[in-house]
Amino acid sequence: MAPAADGVNVKPVSERAVHALPAAPKNVFVHKQDKASSMVHAWTNYYELPVEYTVEIHKDILSPKNTALATRFMPAGLKRRFCVIDETVHTLYAPKLRDYFAAHNVELKIVLIKGEEENKLFAAVEKIFNAMSEFGLLRREPVVAIGGGCVLDIVGFTASCYRRGVPYIRVPTTLLAIVDASVGVKCGVDWVHPTMGGLKNRMGSFYPPCAAFLDKGFIATQDERNLINGMGEIMKLALVRSKELFSLLEVHGKRLVQQRFQTDDFVPDRVIELSIQIMLEELGPNLWEHRLERCVDYGHTFSKILEMTASPPVMHGEAVNIDGFICIILSHRKGWISTETRNRVFAAMRNIGLPTWNSACTIKLLSQAVTDGIEHRHGKLRMPLVRGNIGQSGFINECTEDQLQDAISQILEMHHGARVKDGNV
Amino acid sequence: MAPAADGVNVKPVSERAVHALPAAPKNVFVHKQDKASSMVHAWTNYYELPVEYTVEIHKDILSPKNTALATRFMPAGLKRRFCVIDETVHTLYAPKLRDYFAAHNVELKIVLIKGEEENKLFAAVEKIFNAMSEFGLLRREPVVAIGGGCVLDIVGFTASCYRRGVPYIRVPTTLLAIVDASVGVKCGVDWVHPTMGGLKNRMGSFYPPCAAFLDKGFIATQDERNLINGMGEIMKLALVRSKELFSLLEVHGKRLVQQRFQTDDFVPDRVIELSIQIMLEELGPNLWEHRLERCVDYGHTFSKILEMTASPPVMHGEAVNIDGFICIILSHRKGWISTETRNRVFAAMRNIGLPTWNSACTIKLLSQAVTDGIEHRHGKLRMPLVRGNIGQSGFINECTEDQLQDAISQILEMHHGARVKDGNV
Ligand SMILES: NC(=O)c1ccc[n+]([C@@H]2O[C@H](COP(=O)([O-])OP(=O)(O)OC[C@H]3O[C@@H](n4cnc5c(N)ncnc54)[C@H](O)[C@@H]3O)[C@@H](O)[C@H]2O)c1
Ligand SMILES: NC(=O)c1ccc[n+]([C@@H]2O[C@H](COP(=O)([O-])OP(=O)(O)OC[C@H]3O[C@@H](n4cnc5c(N)ncnc54)[C@H](O)[C@@H]3O)[C@@H](O)[C@H]2O)c1
Ligand SMILES: [Zn+2]
Ligand SMILES: [Zn+2]
Repeated sequence: MAPAADGVNVKPVSERAVHALPAAPKNVFVHKQDKASSMVHAWTNYYELPVEYTVEIHKDILSPKNTALATRFMPAGLKRRFCVIDETVHTLYAPKLRDYFAAHNVELKIVLIKGEEENKLFAAVEKIFNAMSEFGLLRREPVVAIGGGCVLDIVGFTASCYRRGVPYIRVPTTLLAIVDASVGVKCGVDWVHPTMGGLKNRMGSFYPPCAAFLDKGFIATQDERNLINGMGEIMKLALVRSKELFSLLEVHGKRLVQQRFQTDDFVPDRVIELSIQIMLEELGPNLWEHRLERCVDYGHTFSKILEMTASPPVMHGEAVNIDGFICIILSHRKGWISTETRNRVFAAMRNIGLPTWNSACTIKLLSQAVTDGIEHRHGKLRMPLVRGNIGQSGFINECTEDQLQDAISQILEMHHGARVKDGNV
Repeated sequence: MAPAADGVNVKPVSERAVHALPAAPKNVFVHKQDKASSMVHAWTNYYELPVEYTVEIHKDILSPKNTALATRFMPAGLKRRFCVIDETVHTLYAPKLRDYFAAHNVELKIVLIKGEEENKLFAAVEKIFNAMSEFGLLRREPVVAIGGGCVLDIVGFTASCYRRGVPYIRVPTTLLAIVDASVGVKCGVDWVHPTMGGLKNRMGSFYPPCAAFLDKGFIATQDERNLINGMGEIMKLALVRSKELFSLLEVHGKRLVQQRFQTDDFVPDRVIELSIQIMLEELGPNLWEHRLERCVDYGHTFSKILEMTASPPVMHGEAVNIDGFICIILSHRKGWISTETRNRVFAAMRNIGLPTWNSACTIKLLSQAVTDGIEHRHGKLRMPLVRGNIGQSGFINECTEDQLQDAISQILEMHHGARVKDGNV
């Protein structure tokens, strides 16, 4: 969507000398000649595009009793489903998926693509694009994406540009995709520039799904590292928006990971529900990011480059947490949070198993991230930090090399201290 | 944009048992559990995305007195412009462009790409994408596209997916791009499937520019065939929407082509103005094509395949006219227009030099086009035809092989007759 440029010198329609077109609906306006410029005639087309999507929590989405995945949003008369599925998810759930669609008498067309960041590339878009063409996908026939955040991002972007947009449904299968990648309207792939290398999410779009169907049952098969990765995004939300969520993570975080969110007590559901609710509250009015100061960008400044360069690789949620902890230190050094709060966050992160440091975080990388952040957020850093108490935030537009260098030293010191305490030195 | 699927079984928000989220703006709603399905909790995010763009007719856009191209929509403080320019246009206008930007003290970054359909491919997107990355384009910094419909379509699509969307400005340099490609919000590239071959406009998006700056001065350097090509789209608009426009074409069409729209009488400006106004009236409320019955789709059913397969190649506007004439015959045979109207249209087209037939239009190709049209317009043909008088239209959803075969015979007969009359047999 064309965002209004800062410094745009066009007045809102209502303030201009315009009149509506005679034969047109009230959205097209004709301008009088502008004597000051060479413009002799002009029209403005104004339109409010309604956008609506639903995020639904389901129990047993693959139970034959549930019709959602088989029939929702399907054009009348069609008994088929074009599904793009994560290869690993397919290996784990193929029999259940086949039985489910068979029970609903719906022909299942499967396209397999790989998860993992290294495969979130245009080549995957190409594969799906060719399969859609061969399948003869109709313009209003939704594509179903089943997988982690990578598969959802790839399929969303492909759907957004196939015939200028076909509908799609998200079925997230990782914790991270459930609480984050399924809630907003962003999608995209990484771009590999011949000399600049990988550029995270550089090619993409804002493209709402018709719906996201969430079932925490999928999390049961995730490995621990991937699950903790999802906890990174939840921790982020807690830090900038919710004391309640932070307390739940502080007290139950470790066992949530161990039990893979599958217990029947209220905690796993409440953590997921709160995360989604907060995400929606934050995204709601700002789906297209016309406002660039977003507290949910917490942990998303240094993490981008870290994710693209660290070796061995760091996952998205891990990188977000490492970034989030650097930000905790920056907050603390600015006097925005107390030492006690800083230590509480450090302890909670470590207890869950979330990484709080990576040696790739050199001063060079962090400085580059600040430069990139300014470019991405249009000339200002607009970096959110926790301010005051956990659950509250503020923004900073400056972050000097000295501050970054100081944060690095602080973090190394704290980790050394922690290792001494753990007896690991 | 996710279009509402036909047959969608979700009620509008207002009719559902929902309540707004406490901490969220009024656009996020929480649903109660749905006892009939396995859905236990759901949220709906509803948003009206404001979209606005301006189509401006300029006199001498490259005159140093005009600031539009140098400064409009530019973020404050930036004195540079990232321009993607058609190679041919650059050859013709490079000195003027350089002088213009120099006069405004704006640093000009030029990326050259080729016009012509055969180059409207993802490879061009890739080239621009890499150049944008190297340039460090800001998120609110508009890209300027200068060229024919191909360059505008390519740049629009690239802008729509770079960082999930950066603004762009269209400067059309062909008649076709002025009256058509600059007025709506569509962009895209053709897709080459490994076995299915070229798929016209298969990859793209609905992405409004911030503005289109139109200057008919560029038309002066177009060759005759390209100019007549643009007349094809104008003829289309006249047939389904405007008696006045048709009369202007009937009387002045030939000299408009000869004089390249450069005379000072009212006719060239009125033809361009009427074309744009009609396009805007039609597109206005239907920018995202949620409604698939569009009279401006006239001439865009058979033309798509024709354009991708005819050899020697047929241009877009030529193909639209050939398609439009097939549709005139179909109208006539259905009794929707009189023989006199049919003959008047035939004469006007031929007088302008617009092609009314191509031997690639076999029964096989036309039937395939009907099948593809049904797929593209979601299960129904929805083909507009002139109905009643010139300037009025109706839709048909069926077109049998017999009707197509009959149309082919009729057209061949008329052309034979015309050649006899011209003494060309
Ligand atoms: N669009 C958004 O708003 C948004 C938000 C957050 C993150 N993201 C993106 O999401 C991506 C990360 O998502 P992710 O962490 O889900 O990574 P992922 O999609 O790569 O999945 C992680 C791994 O888990 C496997 N997997 C998936 N579901 C499984 C299951 N149920 N059981 C066992 N294994 C399973 C996958 O095959 C993969 O190997 C990043 O590219 C990030 O940019 C997007
Ligand atoms: N987005 C839309 O709504 C829309 C509408 C109509 C057509 N289109 C697309 O537009 C394309 C056709 O556009 P086109 O006819 O402009 O073709 P084009 O862009 O290929 O231009 C035609 C030729 O003219 C040259 N040229 C451009 N400007 C010139 C000038 N001022 N002087 C001399 N030569 C010049 C180009 O280099 C090219 O060789 C098709 O791909 C079609 O699908 C898009
Ligand atoms: Zn994230
Ligand atoms: Zn056209």
